[in-house]
Amino acid sequence: MPAQSKPTPRSGCPLSVSLEILGDRWSLLIIRDLMIRGFRTYKEFLGSDEGIATNILADRLQKLEACGIITLQPDPTDRRKVNYRLTKKGIDLAPVLTELVLWAARYEDTGAPPALIRKMQKNREQFLAEVRQRWRDGGSSPNKEALS
Amino acid sequence: MPAQSKPTPRSGCPLSVSLEILGDRWSLLIIRDLMIRGFRTYKEFLGSDEGIATNILADRLQKLEACGIITLQPDPTDRRKVNYRLTKKGIDLAPVLTELVLWAARYEDTGAPPALIRKMQKNREQFLAEVRQRWRDGGSSPNKEALS
Repeated sequence: MPAQSKPTPRSGCPLSVSLEILGDRWSLLIIRDLMIRGFRTYKEFLGSDEGIATNILADRLQKLEACGIITLQPDPTDRRKVNYRLTKKGIDLAPVLTELVLWAARYEDTGAPPALIRKMQKNREQFLAEVRQRWRDGGSSPNKEALS
Repeated sequence: MPAQSKPTPRSGCPLSVSLEILGDRWSLLIIRDLMIRGFRTYKEFLGSDEGIATNILADRLQKLEACGIITLQPDPTDRRKVNYRLTKKGIDLAPVLTELVLWAARYEDTGAPPALIRKMQKNREQFLAEVRQRWRDGGSSPNKEALS
């Protein structure tokens, strides 16, 4: 069921609603780490190249959970620890990430692997199907070469 | 040619590079107003439902121009006035906007017109082709029903 993440959205425009949830410099990077890199823990997110600050990371994780984009699960090997996982709503952001990646690879200097960009362009649906399959498999086979 | 919008990007990841340019609550709304609503002037952007503050609007327009996403043109009817227009780099954000709209329409309460959402889902390429055609025509026939 649709859930309203804020009591008074600034408008009913679906783009505006998306940006009220995702419109910052960090949220989609956390989603990338879960989706593509197979990261699951706070410590792993904190270690990403972009150098997210611990208070921002904690804030964004809380917000993403409140919006139903990620869930917390006990670690299977140590149930005192918490792992993060994308929900269906979270993995369904894969097309958004894909388009942002393709746009930057086209117009900016990036470290995007050319072979991956070609695959995302020419076999977009296959790329997205593989992302979803990894998610269904529990994210146990991360595509570590995916995004540098 | 690729242009570096910042001298020291926080990483080479193309998603991160995109978010350093677009990762805020407002930039993509201005791009929506140019792309879908046929808005061209500062005053029109300021009047959008989301109520952008004038200092934020001025800042974002300057940033979008510096990144090569929009250009300034003299108004054809009054050359003392300035109009804004998307560049090729700007119109190529149409797939990003489309995916953000589809995601919110699927998971959040929005005012998205169901007929438009169905078209974006089922005839994605046709929808994008029409957006690009309006842009090539100078944005003179805005799709005002497109996003409520």
